[in-house]
Amino acid sequence: MSTESLVRVKTLRQIMEGKRIDAFIIPGTDPHQSEYSAAYWKARGWISGFNGSAGTAVVTLDQAGLWTDSRYFLQAAQQLEGSDFTLFKQGIAGTPSIQEWLSEVLSPGSTVAIDGAMFSYTEATEMKKYFKSKTISLITNFDPFDEIWENRPQLPTDPIFVYPETYSGETAEKKIGNILASVADAGANALLLSALDEIAWTLNIRGTDVDCNPVGICYAFLSEQERILFIDARKITAETAEYLKESRIKLARYDKIHDYLQSLPDGVKLYIDPLKTNYSLVNAVAQQNAIVFGKTPVALPKSIKNETEIAGFRAAMIRDGQALVRFFRWLEQEVPTGKVTEITVAEKLREFRSRQALYVGESFSTIAGYGAHGAIVHYSATPESDVPVRSEGFLLIDSGAQYLDGTTDITRTVALGALTDRQKRDFTLVLKGHIAIATAVFPAGTRGAQIDVLARHFLWNHGLNYLHGTGHGVGHFLNVHEGPQNIRLEENPTPLLPGMVTSNEPGVYIAGEYGIRTENLVLTVPHETTEFGVFHAFETLTLFPIDKKAIDTALLTAEETAWLNRYHQTVYEKLSPGLDEDEKEWLKNATAAL
Amino acid sequence: MSTESLVRVKTLRQIMEGKRIDAFIIPGTDPHQSEYSAAYWKARGWISGFNGSAGTAVVTLDQAGLWTDSRYFLQAAQQLEGSDFTLFKQGIAGTPSIQEWLSEVLSPGSTVAIDGAMFSYTEATEMKKYFKSKTISLITNFDPFDEIWENRPQLPTDPIFVYPETYSGETAEKKIGNILASVADAGANALLLSALDEIAWTLNIRGTDVDCNPVGICYAFLSEQERILFIDARKITAETAEYLKESRIKLARYDKIHDYLQSLPDGVKLYIDPLKTNYSLVNAVAQQNAIVFGKTPVALPKSIKNETEIAGFRAAMIRDGQALVRFFRWLEQEVPTGKVTEITVAEKLREFRSRQALYVGESFSTIAGYGAHGAIVHYSATPESDVPVRSEGFLLIDSGAQYLDGTTDITRTVALGALTDRQKRDFTLVLKGHIAIATAVFPAGTRGAQIDVLARHFLWNHGLNYLHGTGHGVGHFLNVHEGPQNIRLEENPTPLLPGMVTSNEPGVYIAGEYGIRTENLVLTVPHETTEFGVFHAFETLTLFPIDKKAIDTALLTAEETAWLNRYHQTVYEKLSPGLDEDEKEWLKNATAAL
Repeated sequence: MSTESLVRVKTLRQIMEGKRIDAFIIPGTDPHQSEYSAAYWKARGWISGFNGSAGTAVVTLDQAGLWTDSRYFLQAAQQLEGSDFTLFKQGIAGTPSIQEWLSEVLSPGSTVAIDGAMFSYTEATEMKKYFKSKTISLITNFDPFDEIWENRPQLPTDPIFVYPETYSGETAEKKIGNILASVADAGANALLLSALDEIAWTLNIRGTDVDCNPVGICYAFLSEQERILFIDARKITAETAEYLKESRIKLARYDKIHDYLQSLPDGVKLYIDPLKTNYSLVNAVAQQNAIVFGKTPVALPKSIKNETEIAGFRAAMIRDGQALVRFFRWLEQEVPTGKVTEITVAEKLREFRSRQALYVGESFSTIAGYGAHGAIVHYSATPESDVPVRSEGFLLIDSGAQYLDGTTDITRTVALGALTDRQKRDFTLVLKGHIAIATAVFPAGTRGAQIDVLARHFLWNHGLNYLHGTGHGVGHFLNVHEGPQNIRLEENPTPLLPGMVTSNEPGVYIAGEYGIRTENLVLTVPHETTEFGVFHAFETLTLFPIDKKAIDTALLTAEETAWLNRYHQTVYEKLSPGLDEDEKEWLKNATAAL
Repeated sequence: MSTESLVRVKTLRQIMEGKRIDAFIIPGTDPHQSEYSAAYWKARGWISGFNGSAGTAVVTLDQAGLWTDSRYFLQAAQQLEGSDFTLFKQGIAGTPSIQEWLSEVLSPGSTVAIDGAMFSYTEATEMKKYFKSKTISLITNFDPFDEIWENRPQLPTDPIFVYPETYSGETAEKKIGNILASVADAGANALLLSALDEIAWTLNIRGTDVDCNPVGICYAFLSEQERILFIDARKITAETAEYLKESRIKLARYDKIHDYLQSLPDGVKLYIDPLKTNYSLVNAVAQQNAIVFGKTPVALPKSIKNETEIAGFRAAMIRDGQALVRFFRWLEQEVPTGKVTEITVAEKLREFRSRQALYVGESFSTIAGYGAHGAIVHYSATPESDVPVRSEGFLLIDSGAQYLDGTTDITRTVALGALTDRQKRDFTLVLKGHIAIATAVFPAGTRGAQIDVLARHFLWNHGLNYLHGTGHGVGHFLNVHEGPQNIRLEENPTPLLPGMVTSNEPGVYIAGEYGIRTENLVLTVPHETTEFGVFHAFETLTLFPIDKKAIDTALLTAEETAWLNRYHQTVYEKLSPGLDEDEKEWLKNATAAL
């Protein structure tokens, strides 16, 4: 890979020189600000060799850098070896930001280039302002990849499909009405949507354009007068065409969105989320004073699941849990044979899940990290890194599936043999944090950043911590990562509202030794109303036992033990009806009271 | 009071009519944005009768309203009875803000007036913008009180005094140098200070102009070229004059600040905190583009106590704790006589404290609330409300002192006789929260809002809560409430840094029944450094036993009991050397291990 990267960077530099560009910033996203994007847009991976989900490459005429976060330090270091790229570790004291680094290595008067379609309006605007203060100019329309990327993947032309009300629980008509009403409250009468999951949710359509995220590549324009889906016509089946017609949604070519924005109908006041919409798109609007900037009106209603969606989640959790029972039973039997590796773990898990009703695919690439690999937070086994899974220590498996009725995301860390006292203590500290979130009761209005500490403080007391968030929102047969809520150290003003589905996934990672994470999805539910106000709580949706062998029971309080026993009882009651006798037997043991 | 208020409002309305003013907003603060102000500025109390520390009065030609927060709902309701003022309860769903209410009751084209000196620049600017959007104009120089307030108190002329380095631990010279350095980093070369505690801390001076807050009324202008203290000359003793001269600080008349700002020396780039500086003052600056707005550079260094200040706090806590031992021993003996009332409690407590070395005065008015009065968070006993303290239920006492070497603030809730199970449970839940903060370990960079839940979650689990913050910063022989850090539900970006002194005061208030609060001051200290980074913790500074009679020991974990026993042992070790045998005996019992 590194040799290829050297050649590609060289070619890029020739073009840059020709255009008098001194530096080019290549992010890992797409024109829809997606976390995961179609192969067509994976230019950062193509040029640098680093294929993690987060990272930005920067190429100057004589240097190159790759910025990524702690999840990918190890992977990036390996994948960048031998390339021209220096790794810059984000979040580590002393690491310059890309802008700081560029204003350091470039002389005043230099020119930096970006493809404005790959940055949100907010990002590009702030970048422009920053560089201006350093007398560096920013070109926002540099897109050399069609020219230099041989055999560049095509944009997908796979069909999108209609997502029926049986699963979505609410018609697109109703959703569009509500969304346009909130847009009207903000003084606008039209809305531009470019986040793929927002369009999919609003219009009740799904696609297969992005691995693991059931979305289709498109833009949407919505107003009382006009509803337009900008999409490649090849993606529209007869059934979808019929549905869109009934929903009064017109079709336009995907690449015509700029033209449309350039000549908006008279009187349009267009609502745009500058954090979710790319710079080129916003700039395409000829009448800039027709734009009303504000937070997306879709993210919040999308995050608050309706009764149908919640019922779907519950049903999907049962099928997912049953597949996991079969998988973990298989794992227990097979590890002693010595033939199981991290890669076979991921394959077998997918196989068991794929036999379940309504299964569509994985909701993200399985992380199966054995031993020291468990400490690499977003580890993805490759043929080079793959190791046999043996009868000792921890195996961490973070995986999930897309079912037509819901999305799952679960992490279990299992003891494959004897554990050290420290391993047991750490597992139990993580479990105590997990239980503290699972059992939290909090006043209406409470934000994730307020309760994050409940998951961490047992670890902090021992000088331990984890550098990722405690919880992310989860879409309903949509992206496994969604906003607007989360449970993190960082402030986020969105409260945890009833109907939201969020992950609960504390962990701890001892570099070079082992990693532990215990993750369930939780649903915010109303709890009680007292003279002190309305209180909410969480209901755990995920159904699969937590490995009792890894617990130091002396560290659990009576309440914590009681929670675990209750949870395990629920897991048994919900999963056993679909299992055969041997599987039931296995689950009975795994869920027996402590 | 209410009759007086009616007359005063009538007089005000006559003036308003003469000047074609439709509404006048009267806040409870002063030109220095103080929480507590000199009598001269207590116009809101004078006109409305409500004398709580927080509240704003609004008078229109035919209506009047008083806005205050939950701490004062009861007191305000009582004090406003029979007046023209309607109580608006802030923080309660459905209560309009002052601006919302005014734009409701006034017609477009109306005129609202404020005294611009009584609002921060930010507040007044936002207000102006808001009213403009409602086509209401805002006059910012209306100050009728000299005219209508008969026998208005004078501005105090009491002397300010020098606060020696023995107590402050750092010269004014050094502080000014550091502050001007941070101002220079922000592109300015001069600083306007108007917060009284910021000036007192920076210049190492103190005063007696505001009850309980040892500050003097003045403004300060600081630059490399010029240091000017704007202050009434009568407040300057020969000694202070000498000190200021040595410190190269010139004197100017207090009321000359506006003139000075109108004609700033050439080349001055003046740093101003728009949240801490009043609107009139900022507007007085003739060259508005000479202003650099930013956060006060004084608040953070002031909050990080140096070794001398910390040693002072520790010494003050011992003397304060010893006075409390004498007081609570007296209380125990006297309650059965039936002669003790809430007012005598406060008086006696002041008397015991006043005998201690370096005592200067109270750091705030003692809150002594017996029974149901304990549920009124900022209760202040008056001859009308005063009740005898009997041998049953809870007595809540929140009090503190200013000593030359430190400021104290402590709340104890004591059982004067039998308690109900619910009272004991609630006391213990509050204690568990208090201990959770006292024993918290957290990574460097942690903010108060992140750990606030540790104090609350035991209560939340029982549908209980308290509507005040968990902790506020405490000044060093300065204001008992200071920023920039705190421990609250609300986000505050300031981290809890080593050297900061913060209160730890969870509580619970059952309206009409009882109130419970347990408050100590804690010092942030470095704890340990591990592969996961730097961790901080708290050291409890306050030294006085927590009432064991009120604890339901079955609800405490082994660790919580161990903390209480260790804390009590420390209290005994630190306080007993200065006590006589009987007092020691009392303390021995009060601190005996659970």
